[in-house]
Amino acid sequence: VSDTRDRRASRKRRVRLGTLGEHGWIGRLLDRLPSADRRVVVGPGDDAAVVRASRRPLVLTTDTLREGVHFRQGWIRPAALGRRAFLVNASDVAAMGGTPAWALVAVEAPARTPVATLDRVVAGFAAEARRAGATLVGGNLVAGPALALTVALVGEAPGRVVTRAGARAGDTLWVTGALGAAGTAVARLRAGRRDRLPLPPRRTAAGVALAAVAHAMIDVSDGLVQDVGHLCRASGVGAELALDRLPVAASCRRMLGARAAAFAAVAGEDYELVIAVPARALGRLARIRRRLGCRLTEVGRVVAGRPAVRVLGPGGRHARVAHPGFDHFR
Amino acid sequence: VSDTRDRRASRKRRVRLGTLGEHGWIGRLLDRLPSADRRVVVGPGDDAAVVRASRRPLVLTTDTLREGVHFRQGWIRPAALGRRAFLVNASDVAAMGGTPAWALVAVEAPARTPVATLDRVVAGFAAEARRAGATLVGGNLVAGPALALTVALVGEAPGRVVTRAGARAGDTLWVTGALGAAGTAVARLRAGRRDRLPLPPRRTAAGVALAAVAHAMIDVSDGLVQDVGHLCRASGVGAELALDRLPVAASCRRMLGARAAAFAAVAGEDYELVIAVPARALGRLARIRRRLGCRLTEVGRVVAGRPAVRVLGPGGRHARVAHPGFDHFR
Repeated sequence: VSDTRDRRASRKRRVRLGTLGEHGWIGRLLDRLPSADRRVVVGPGDDAAVVRASRRPLVLTTDTLREGVHFRQGWIRPAALGRRAFLVNASDVAAMGGTPAWALVAVEAPARTPVATLDRVVAGFAAEARRAGATLVGGNLVAGPALALTVALVGEAPGRVVTRAGARAGDTLWVTGALGAAGTAVARLRAGRRDRLPLPPRRTAAGVALAAVAHAMIDVSDGLVQDVGHLCRASGVGAELALDRLPVAASCRRMLGARAAAFAAVAGEDYELVIAVPARALGRLARIRRRLGCRLTEVGRVVAGRPAVRVLGPGGRHARVAHPGFDHFR
Repeated sequence: VSDTRDRRASRKRRVRLGTLGEHGWIGRLLDRLPSADRRVVVGPGDDAAVVRASRRPLVLTTDTLREGVHFRQGWIRPAALGRRAFLVNASDVAAMGGTPAWALVAVEAPARTPVATLDRVVAGFAAEARRAGATLVGGNLVAGPALALTVALVGEAPGRVVTRAGARAGDTLWVTGALGAAGTAVARLRAGRRDRLPLPPRRTAAGVALAAVAHAMIDVSDGLVQDVGHLCRASGVGAELALDRLPVAASCRRMLGARAAAFAAVAGEDYELVIAVPARALGRLARIRRRLGCRLTEVGRVVAGRPAVRVLGPGGRHARVAHPGFDHFR
C-alpha cells in the first residue's frame, strides 16, 4: 500500500500547472475547498462570490507577496507562503480594529510550477483564513514569470475603528510581541545561511482589544521607525522611541548582540501592532494587557512638533539607526 | 506659459518610479484621489479602508491584467489600461446581478516605469470606477518585472443574485452587445498591424436588469463557446449555439468576412453577458430589452444531456470552430 501511495505521490509531484491547465487546476481545487461559512451565498467557482455581511463597517485591504521581492525559493515552504499571504493582510485589518471575514486570492505562477506546490499554497492560505474565522471565497490564476499571490481581504469592525491619525502629544507608544525576527531571518538567508521566514504573528484579537483604547494604530511592515513615522505624519505629531525598551526577538539578539535593538528598530515584516494611548486610558490598557495573549511593551511617546521620529539610546541621547525601513523602489 | 508647461510636462515624463519611490508616488497619488463617497469612513492611505455597506448581499471578485499576458506595450494607452482593469472586474460583478461599490488596486511595476504612466493608469481606473458609482479605496505598489494590475472589486446586489447554475432545458440563450471585436484587435496587433484593444462594454445596468429574468448568467471572457460551457457544467445541461445568429462586431466582420462568426464564437475578452431565460419570462425580457441600452440577441438554447456545447452552422448542421476559448497554461 505504502509503495502505491509513494508512486502516486511522486506522480503528483511531477504534474505541472502547464499540464493540468488553468481550468483543470481551478476545477480540482474547488472540489476541495470547504464551505462551512453560512454567510457565503455563492462561493468560489462562479463569476464572483456573494456573501451576507453584518451591519458592521467593512474593512478592505490588499497586499502582494512576490517571489524575488518578498521571498525567494527555499526561504519558505509552500503551505507557509499561503499562511503568510493571509496573515500579512490580516495584519492590516487588525491595525484598523477589524476581524477578517472573506478573502480573494489572485495567483500568478509559471507553467512549470508543480501542481502539488500550488495546492499546498492554497491549502495553507485556506487553513489560516479558517483559523481567523474567515473564508476563501474566490480567486484567479494567471501565467506569469514568478510565483506571486495578491490577496484582497474583507473584514468587519466589531467595535471602534482606529486609524493612523489621532495620536496626540503626551500619548505613550506601545508595541505587541517582539521585533527583528523576520529581519534576522532575511539577513541570514541573504547571506546563504539556512533559515526560514517566520510566520507573521496572529494579532486579530489583540487589534480588536487595543482599538478600544488607542488614539491611533498601525502595523509594523516597513520597520518600527518608518511605520511610527507614517503614524506621526497622519497625526501631525512627532515621536520618540527608546531603543533600550524595544522588545527584541531572541533570534535577533542572538545574531546581533548589542546591536540587536538598533536593527530591530528598522527591520521590516514583523507585523506587530503599534498603538498610541492617551494617559487617561492607561488603566484600561493595563486590564486589556493581562488578557491580550501576547507581550505589550511601552517603547516611546508622542511629542508635539514636526512629524519626525527621534530614536533615543542609553541615557536618552539621540541614537543612530540604519536607513529606516523599506521602500520597494529605493 | 505654454513653453513653461511643455518643460514641466517633459520633466514629469522623465521622472521614473525608481526616483520617486513607493511612498513618494503613493503620497502624491493620495493628494489627488477624490473622496466624494459618503459611505467611505477611511479612504486610501491607512492600513486598510473602512466603508459602510448597505444590507444588500456583497459581490466579491478579483482579476489581473498583466503585461505580456493580457496586453503588450503599445496595445493600450495607460488611461485605457486603468479603465480596462476596472471594467473586466465590473463585468464579473454584473454577471451576478451586482453593481460595483469599492475597489482596491494592487499595482506591480518596474522601477523604470515613468511616474506619469502610472498616474494615468490610476486616473483612468478611478474615473471608470466613479462612472460606475464606485470608489477606489485602497491599493498597494510593489516592484516587479512588468506592469500588472490586480483589482479586487466589492459590489452590492440590488436585486436577484444570478449564478452560472440554474439554466434548464428549454431556456433560450441571449447575449448582450457584439462579439469578436477584442479578438480581432488582438489578432491584428499580434500580426504587427496598428490597432488598440477596445474598452470592455459597460454592462452594470444591463446585468441588474437581466438578473430579474435569467435562470443563469455568465460574462464572456474566455470566448462564448467556452463560457457557455462553464454555464452548462454548473447547471448540468447542454447547449446549442447558432453561428448565423451571433451578433458579430463590425471590425471582426470586416477582417474575416464569412469566417467572422466562427471566430467570434471562440474569441475572448468581449465581456458581454450571456443569460439563459425560461420561456415564461420571455414577455418580461422583451420589455426589459427595450430599455437595456445595448443589443440583446438570441443565440441558442439550453438542451438536456451532458454539459457540452454544440455549435450549429447554416441549416442546423454541426459547425467546426477553432479550439474553444482561452486557458492561461494551454
